[in-house]
Amino acid sequence: MEGHVDHPYVPRDLKLPGYVPVFLSQSTILTVYGTSSVLVVSFMWLLSGRVQKISKVDRILMCWWIFTGLTHIILEGYFAFTPDFYKVKTPHYLAEVWKEYSKGDSRYVGRDSAVVAVEGITAAIEGPACLLAVYAIAMKSSYSYVLQLAICLGQLYGCAVYFATAILEGDNFATSEFYYYAYYVVANMWWVFIPGAIVVRCWKKISAACQVQEQKKSKIR
Amino acid sequence: MEGHVDHPYVPRDLKLPGYVPVFLSQSTILTVYGTSSVLVVSFMWLLSGRVQKISKVDRILMCWWIFTGLTHIILEGYFAFTPDFYKVKTPHYLAEVWKEYSKGDSRYVGRDSAVVAVEGITAAIEGPACLLAVYAIAMKSSYSYVLQLAICLGQLYGCAVYFATAILEGDNFATSEFYYYAYYVVANMWWVFIPGAIVVRCWKKISAACQVQEQKKSKIR
Repeated sequence: MEGHVDHPYVPRDLKLPGYVPVFLSQSTILTVYGTSSVLVVSFMWLLSGRVQKISKVDRILMCWWIFTGLTHIILEGYFAFTPDFYKVKTPHYLAEVWKEYSKGDSRYVGRDSAVVAVEGITAAIEGPACLLAVYAIAMKSSYSYVLQLAICLGQLYGCAVYFATAILEGDNFATSEFYYYAYYVVANMWWVFIPGAIVVRCWKKISAACQVQEQKKSKIR
Repeated sequence: MEGHVDHPYVPRDLKLPGYVPVFLSQSTILTVYGTSSVLVVSFMWLLSGRVQKISKVDRILMCWWIFTGLTHIILEGYFAFTPDFYKVKTPHYLAEVWKEYSKGDSRYVGRDSAVVAVEGITAAIEGPACLLAVYAIAMKSSYSYVLQLAICLGQLYGCAVYFATAILEGDNFATSEFYYYAYYVVANMWWVFIPGAIVVRCWKKISAACQVQEQKKSKIR
């Protein structure tokens, strides 16, 4: 009997006792996230302009780090540490986000352990580290590049585990093709390409600095 | 009926059709791994002595990287890319290793997707990168520290996912307390503490080099 399945997710035999349907529309959920992100990024762009002798690339990076850091801490943190989010009876924006996103990957609402582990690490370790990266860039700290590299490698590793486990488990967790591409592929893609690009940049900067250091040592000898 | 369960692993209801029991004794399996490792490390220690002006720490690191790299590629590579290893009918040393190790964590023989994903990444990416690290240290390459840091962060992230998913799934995968501690805790512990120590060392070296670089830039201005 189909009557037992009272949720929109795939696989259809996923058991979600106490599931409460999404209250908010897709456009409301995306608009709130989009608007908050634009506000946060605009604020950081203006603030970063007050840092002396800062390059445009560093200002853009400060915007990225505040955006991704707050996403990790608030959105992913809520998911990782709220096992019963899909049972929340009063409309709660963060619960709505994950009930909506689960249309692209039902392992979220199903609390797949690999997804929860990756999201927990991302929220608890990488999130705060992103905020530290904003500070490190502004202060031109000596650990700025190595910190950014470390966070990006974590984000890339997280994405690798995220996609690899999905494939190993049959890659059948999306409600439709649309949600598969829009949420699962496109939304996550940014956390592959942007950290990938930052890794390359930091790797080069660090190698160059280490080379100078090594040459200096050789001269002293 | 207990008769259906023909394997020694926990949980007892784990289904392993076609399971072939371990042929080799625990001591044989550990002796082969231990002896090969001692040979590889000794060979690297001697070889590294021929590198000019190399520090003892770097020689020890070369030994660690060849050991961990070959472990990743050969042992973990075999596991990750041989789904049916527990059905192998003729004694195969690598299959024996994982049938034995599964007494400490049955998710290996049960092919838990998080374990397979982490081991796949470790074998295919980190393993070859470890061998490159041996070369980078010997050549005093400018990317030596950043490469070692990147591998260690990957090993730490892998361990975090490995332990977190086990806890999330109930942490009940060991045949006995002995195997839990000997295989699951102690054997993995080295891949937490040693990469942890190398991360701290590389982080400091990189920060120092970047600081020098930054000061030089400031003087030019």
